[in-house]
Amino acid sequence: MTLTLYTFDWLPEFPRGFVRDLRVRWGLEEIGRSYQVATVPAHPKSAEHRKLQPFTQVPVIQDGEQTLFESGAILVYLCEGTPLLPDDRKAEIWQWLFAALNTVELSVMHWVSMILAERVPEFFGPPPAADVKAHAKADMDTKLTALQQALGDKEWLAGDFSVADIAMVEVLRVVAAEEALDAHPHLAAYVERATSRPAFKKAMADHMQHWQTADAEQAKRSTG
Amino acid sequence: MTLTLYTFDWLPEFPRGFVRDLRVRWGLEEIGRSYQVATVPAHPKSAEHRKLQPFTQVPVIQDGEQTLFESGAILVYLCEGTPLLPDDRKAEIWQWLFAALNTVELSVMHWVSMILAERVPEFFGPPPAADVKAHAKADMDTKLTALQQALGDKEWLAGDFSVADIAMVEVLRVVAAEEALDAHPHLAAYVERATSRPAFKKAMADHMQHWQTADAEQAKRSTG
Repeated sequence: MTLTLYTFDWLPEFPRGFVRDLRVRWGLEEIGRSYQVATVPAHPKSAEHRKLQPFTQVPVIQDGEQTLFESGAILVYLCEGTPLLPDDRKAEIWQWLFAALNTVELSVMHWVSMILAERVPEFFGPPPAADVKAHAKADMDTKLTALQQALGDKEWLAGDFSVADIAMVEVLRVVAAEEALDAHPHLAAYVERATSRPAFKKAMADHMQHWQTADAEQAKRSTG
Repeated sequence: MTLTLYTFDWLPEFPRGFVRDLRVRWGLEEIGRSYQVATVPAHPKSAEHRKLQPFTQVPVIQDGEQTLFESGAILVYLCEGTPLLPDDRKAEIWQWLFAALNTVELSVMHWVSMILAERVPEFFGPPPAADVKAHAKADMDTKLTALQQALGDKEWLAGDFSVADIAMVEVLRVVAAEEALDAHPHLAAYVERATSRPAFKKAMADHMQHWQTADAEQAKRSTG
């Protein structure tokens, strides 16, 4: 059965490499499942998109009769029972999956959205004062210090590489892109280790190719 | 086998009624499973606590050999296969569980932590300027409007009452406490419906009794 992954039709440069269809592409490459890509308009959002995804976010998948959104839920759905989410380690993997997408991402996005407000205020709103950002940064660093200590010398969070690592690394890549992961060298090495995997490289290449194709199509339309 | 739920030994008034052991107590009451409560010191945090929970948060559970943190993972672990997370609706329940704990909670906590900074700056840092808060509020309201539309006339998010409703209602209760849910009357009714359940009432009563007992013990110690 063909699996369809929805992402946006086009986006500006700044979110490319970080749009959440990448998390799902990565998981699909890891488990060796093929898929096709479909798009929804990024701007303006469509009623069809809202029917698929009430928050007009991506990704969404369609797998036969099953339509599903939220990258965390999609990863669980696709990978349950595979080596990325085997039954005998599932509780620990869930634990780290929620740690990534709740505990760590809440702190990371609280700070990152303040930083991005300086660059893209039309999207992220007016930038907060320096002391507000500094507090958010300190809160994030407390979480990252704790995470680094919990990871210790382990290669991955919960035994072998799992969906929890996909989620956590995708959250940490945002920190790394803001050059704020250097203070946590074990986490930087963890991200490096994960993003060296062939499945990540393939997923990222396909993700970036999608935007390049979208650019080319847009250029064709504007000159056509 | 006795299940142990860890929460803090004592907390000031403001977070009571919202500490995340409540989410787990609620789930346990719904499935009719008994448990005992153990505590970790809220301040200063202990090395024993960090061994149980790397971010020194609560809740943590111990169930025989299984120690587990992250309230989302604990709810899945405890409720898998029960009417709160039955196999035949699990993908949809996972979807709404992550919608609650990632999409909605990220926006809610981004705004609420700015509001709480006015009241408890020693914990939440310096309060941001009014325009920064207004942008965070608008972002949250966009999510809540979309959620209300997705809920529509349904009683619960994914068929019968599920762990996704526990998570979503616990996130929305924070908004309601800041009197910001009135603009979304269907969500306010949803919270009212959920918190009228006997399992919620029992969980909340036990949660509040825990702090009252802690107050009494602290008073005893200080006069003893």
